[in-house]
Amino acid sequence: MSDSRVITPGFHGPRISTRGQLIEPFYAVAIFREAMEMAHEGRSIFMSVGEPDFPTPARVVGAAVAALRRGETHYTVPTGIPELRRAIARQYQERYGVTVPAERILVTVGASGALALTFGVLAEPGDEFLMADPGYPSNRALMTFCGASANLVPVGAAERFQLTAELVDRHWTPTTRGVMVASPANPTGTTIPDAELRAIHDVVRARGGTLIVDEIYHGLTYDSTPQTGAALGDDVFVVNSFSKYYCMTGWRLGWMVVPEPYFDAVERMSQHMFIAPPAPSQWAGVEALAPESTAIYERQREELHRRRDFVVPALSAIGLEVACKPDGAFYVYVDCSAHTHDTWHFVRDLLHATGVAVTPGRDFGQHRASEFLRISYTCPLPQMEEALGRIASFVEGRRK
Amino acid sequence: MSDSRVITPGFHGPRISTRGQLIEPFYAVAIFREAMEMAHEGRSIFMSVGEPDFPTPARVVGAAVAALRRGETHYTVPTGIPELRRAIARQYQERYGVTVPAERILVTVGASGALALTFGVLAEPGDEFLMADPGYPSNRALMTFCGASANLVPVGAAERFQLTAELVDRHWTPTTRGVMVASPANPTGTTIPDAELRAIHDVVRARGGTLIVDEIYHGLTYDSTPQTGAALGDDVFVVNSFSKYYCMTGWRLGWMVVPEPYFDAVERMSQHMFIAPPAPSQWAGVEALAPESTAIYERQREELHRRRDFVVPALSAIGLEVACKPDGAFYVYVDCSAHTHDTWHFVRDLLHATGVAVTPGRDFGQHRASEFLRISYTCPLPQMEEALGRIASFVEGRRK
Repeated sequence: MSDSRVITPGFHGPRISTRGQLIEPFYAVAIFREAMEMAHEGRSIFMSVGEPDFPTPARVVGAAVAALRRGETHYTVPTGIPELRRAIARQYQERYGVTVPAERILVTVGASGALALTFGVLAEPGDEFLMADPGYPSNRALMTFCGASANLVPVGAAERFQLTAELVDRHWTPTTRGVMVASPANPTGTTIPDAELRAIHDVVRARGGTLIVDEIYHGLTYDSTPQTGAALGDDVFVVNSFSKYYCMTGWRLGWMVVPEPYFDAVERMSQHMFIAPPAPSQWAGVEALAPESTAIYERQREELHRRRDFVVPALSAIGLEVACKPDGAFYVYVDCSAHTHDTWHFVRDLLHATGVAVTPGRDFGQHRASEFLRISYTCPLPQMEEALGRIASFVEGRRK
Repeated sequence: MSDSRVITPGFHGPRISTRGQLIEPFYAVAIFREAMEMAHEGRSIFMSVGEPDFPTPARVVGAAVAALRRGETHYTVPTGIPELRRAIARQYQERYGVTVPAERILVTVGASGALALTFGVLAEPGDEFLMADPGYPSNRALMTFCGASANLVPVGAAERFQLTAELVDRHWTPTTRGVMVASPANPTGTTIPDAELRAIHDVVRARGGTLIVDEIYHGLTYDSTPQTGAALGDDVFVVNSFSKYYCMTGWRLGWMVVPEPYFDAVERMSQHMFIAPPAPSQWAGVEALAPESTAIYERQREELHRRRDFVVPALSAIGLEVACKPDGAFYVYVDCSAHTHDTWHFVRDLLHATGVAVTPGRDFGQHRASEFLRISYTCPLPQMEEALGRIASFVEGRRK
């Protein structure tokens, strides 16, 4: 990926669209590639990737295999198979006590697909959406794809790296079309308290905008269990995924809860962009939602909980400040300002010196991005201990 | 799907984006749904769907199962696994004698994903692309998604329903950014002769535009074997798919050949819209390209060839004119103007009277769309004979 992306249009040269020039890469991918090359030397420890290290449970894989063997290799209906839509609806009832009709649930090609459709149906060129900075990079990129833009609101440890109702109200402008929040969030692992999310929704509704809640990391929380945004009202877009809690990143399966007046338009766009989500993945998804699978997932959540409780104090102990203790996902957003004001180079130096891959803050926005890095606790505890030891030596070495 | 899609924006009501209002549904899906409901009564015969009736071959399924069993359930690299990119590159060499470096091949979530990325990287809002009318509906829809538009060029049996170099040159305007052709085409099943495609490319290049060639139905040709658009030059975008020849619709797997100067931008957009294509599908794709699989696919192609040779004269015999004999894909575009000027209602009447599902012309554009319908020869010969008999009675009944 070159850094010189803005190419002068020429009549006979390549003419890359404005969106094609503006959209930034995932910097994590560049780090991952470098780390992969080093992996051949057997040294790398990956704490950079946004996916659990657990494979998909065998019983979930088994459901896909059974579906394939019985010939489920054709297009499904565009909205997703009824079995899966019903299972998702049932989960809203059982886990959250919220009634979400299956007719409002659209199964998507990952949460990425859900985000593209959500922004696609809401964002008019020139619109802006309020989002926390730091935040998930694809939200900004997909806004750009649609000709809209993110109005990035700087947030810090004081706000637990999250928007508040007060911030939303203060930053609202005449071109603000809506607000996007993520709880738990990437890269910070923090959640929004239920009452605050309700207050945000009230402000958005009073302003006549639309609230989008990213719940991709729901299920992976360690101190409390947040309510779903779908409980706030039937005007909220909720985006979710089988990737994280359900350990199904490679299957590309997600879903969205769509306000009824938008459903028809979202479905039409989905037909053309995706036709339908992958068939074997959908049958695996049904099994992932079965109670027998929940027991497996809850054990994995407990393991992540243990890792969080290890890594946060361990980072502080080596002088890497965790200003805001994460309560969800599998990320720690680390303030490195005592050590560097250029985490992009810090991260690459760390990788080459120690083989430990972490993600630079620049993936997640502009606000103090060069002073932060993200650590994923997605490797087993013994490896994490080894990694923390190497990071400690690296930091110590830089001090000298 | 409602027909009243344009909703007046209200400050507190839903505000659907312009693209969300403009993009039309697949009308074939509505027909499919109605036919599915009737299927429970055991009468329906599907000649409406854009996918082969053959399931994915067992050896291809087996490769996915093996991959899943060995834990290939994580994200792959965004560009697609190297094994698959190399296998696709090898096929360009072996099948077409054309060198396409694996580095220019991007594996995508179906050809739909490839189309979204192609238009995304090329189309600036306000741009227009020349396309044949009739043509594949998603091309228009995805252009709309990007704020660009299709400049639909009416084509008929005289041009074998395809653009020509002369038509491209004649319809070029100051806002034309490029040309999209499909060979073999949906809904007409016709190919563009190699020399004509070369001439189109020459015109596009002289005009400083970009040529996109949809080769989704490559492999499924019955009278000749077309050359790939990738042979014309390294400035051509080629879109392809595992869905049709490889019978993998439900796996959502495609690819594109990207001109080198655009690759970086396409990859960046792809990371955010898709992260990566489905992992099990990619391993299945590698097996689909193996020589042992080709033997299976070629037998299926021969079966489709037999069906084509049955259905075209059979339609003519019952007074449904096939003005232009298709030489590829699995479609016949039927001129019904002797019987109706409203194939949307004709198709639904046919379905309800006989249980035979076909697709109305309105899915494919405006040019004489209400006088045409599309038949897919994606059911076995005995069923097709039965269907043709029912259609004959229906047409006969309307005459009285």
